[in-house]
Amino acid sequence: MKALYYNGSSAQYKEDAPMPVCEPGQSLIKILLANICNTDREILKGYRQDFRGIMGHEFVGEVVESPDQELVGKIVVGELNEGCGNCIYCRSGREKHCLSRKVIGMSKDGCFAEYMSLATHLIHPVPEGMRAEQAIFTEPLAAALEITKQVHIDPAMNAAVIGDGRLAYMIAQVLALTGIDLTVIGKHEEKLASFSPFAKTKLLKDYYEGEDLCDLTADECFEYVVEASGSESGFPLAMHLVRKMGTIILKSTYAGTANLNMSMIPVNEITVVGSRCGPFEPALKLLSEGKVSFPDVELYELKDYEKAFASHAFKAGFRF
Amino acid sequence: MKALYYNGSSAQYKEDAPMPVCEPGQSLIKILLANICNTDREILKGYRQDFRGIMGHEFVGEVVESPDQELVGKIVVGELNEGCGNCIYCRSGREKHCLSRKVIGMSKDGCFAEYMSLATHLIHPVPEGMRAEQAIFTEPLAAALEITKQVHIDPAMNAAVIGDGRLAYMIAQVLALTGIDLTVIGKHEEKLASFSPFAKTKLLKDYYEGEDLCDLTADECFEYVVEASGSESGFPLAMHLVRKMGTIILKSTYAGTANLNMSMIPVNEITVVGSRCGPFEPALKLLSEGKVSFPDVELYELKDYEKAFASHAFKAGFRF
Repeated sequence: MKALYYNGSSAQYKEDAPMPVCEPGQSLIKILLANICNTDREILKGYRQDFRGIMGHEFVGEVVESPDQELVGKIVVGELNEGCGNCIYCRSGREKHCLSRKVIGMSKDGCFAEYMSLATHLIHPVPEGMRAEQAIFTEPLAAALEITKQVHIDPAMNAAVIGDGRLAYMIAQVLALTGIDLTVIGKHEEKLASFSPFAKTKLLKDYYEGEDLCDLTADECFEYVVEASGSESGFPLAMHLVRKMGTIILKSTYAGTANLNMSMIPVNEITVVGSRCGPFEPALKLLSEGKVSFPDVELYELKDYEKAFASHAFKAGFRF
Repeated sequence: MKALYYNGSSAQYKEDAPMPVCEPGQSLIKILLANICNTDREILKGYRQDFRGIMGHEFVGEVVESPDQELVGKIVVGELNEGCGNCIYCRSGREKHCLSRKVIGMSKDGCFAEYMSLATHLIHPVPEGMRAEQAIFTEPLAAALEITKQVHIDPAMNAAVIGDGRLAYMIAQVLALTGIDLTVIGKHEEKLASFSPFAKTKLLKDYYEGEDLCDLTADECFEYVVEASGSESGFPLAMHLVRKMGTIILKSTYAGTANLNMSMIPVNEITVVGSRCGPFEPALKLLSEGKVSFPDVELYELKDYEKAFASHAFKAGFRF
């Protein structure tokens, strides 16, 4: 089969990759569509140097073999993290944090291939009539929904999202559904325009005077601040924007360490919540009801992976 | 009257201080007992350089004048922070974070004096029959109870407190009341002994091999870690001890910035909760029922303030 491998330093396209073999409890999935996530780009930069195998973790596919006969023939999406099933994390609903988990596309063969095996309990059927080009957003949208899973968002308060990229776009749509007074803060006027149907927008530079953050009144601060900029300046800005006793949600993996006065956390009783992968079912529901939506994916043949990785589209992916 | 002033650099004892004048809505309190808090010691080191006035914020007193006639003659304790009453913080139950608040002993005359004025709504009567030597612990115990106000403590999980000082002793007693599996981690074997009636104890050095933190299994980690050590090493240790998706509660005002890999917060979905002053009523209830208790205060005459500040007792204070 066709597959895109990571060999420890770069991506490698193969047409004669061996078919995956299902272990007990796994299903075999024929991949229809697979998206490139920023994490895949990070892997090519060396984020997972020990990994050797097929890349990719965002997919829509069709189940072709499964211990659950009802799944066979179904169009599905699937979760990344396959835990051991026995540890404190697996036993307390935190399988994604299992210390001996396998992660598709990161420590186990992924979905940039014609076929992939996956633990059956991680598979979620796509609702009838939903296009694969929208279902493919289940995994990143689930990561946005992790915020409302972790934090009670009081819709009578206000919220800010720092960042105007793809992750911010998903998060902002989820927060907007609460009815909260929402402001998106970004660097790019043209990107911010896409947020204006459901949020106020503000340019990042308006919060600075030269290198320094401007003083803010209590009314200009926010009860919830989501840091989704992926930039080093994001966390210090979030600390500046958040109300006392407010909540910062850290989605960016890169949050830096520079100039952080940690004592402001107890003094102002700030809560900082780290947030990562999230629940698939509400993501599928919101997508199928059209409550959130995203531009169609720019699709490439797998052999043209270099073009796909270089794409500046909202999302680029592969069709099989 | 007798009073202990802060003059911008040191403490100054006066016998001819003017009596406080009550503004509308305030009550006049005759101080019976006042405790030295670590914050008072910090003030003498320069923590509040703009402040000029009477020090002290932990007290038990008797109301001698009040717009609320039912309070007159009552033995009371009182909260520190008097807000403006009109801002977003005052209007959302966060008076203690009001940007224009007055804080007794820090930006308004405090309780190291024979009399003090205080906003009447900040005054709490002490339950009948409760000794002043226990009631005096209401304010610091309230700060410990802020943890259970902010964070749902699941008693089926486990918790660690880093620190073996006074603050840790109050926090550990409050956490122990939930029934949770509790471990107190400290530097001093003799101090840790006082925790053993209600917690497991562990020496800090057992978590280190030389300069480095030892590797821990998931079972050796904690769902909740309270940082109450007041030391720079506390936060990195808390990050090491906490389970993935667990919660760190920062009580120490000094948490430092060194070697903090902030990206571990989103990757491991850690929640960090800053925690400060807390609710008085549950503190008074627990004290009056004997559910928590503390050694008696070492009491001095106000003129002997230097001895009192130098005391190594669990708590030192003044009698009037």
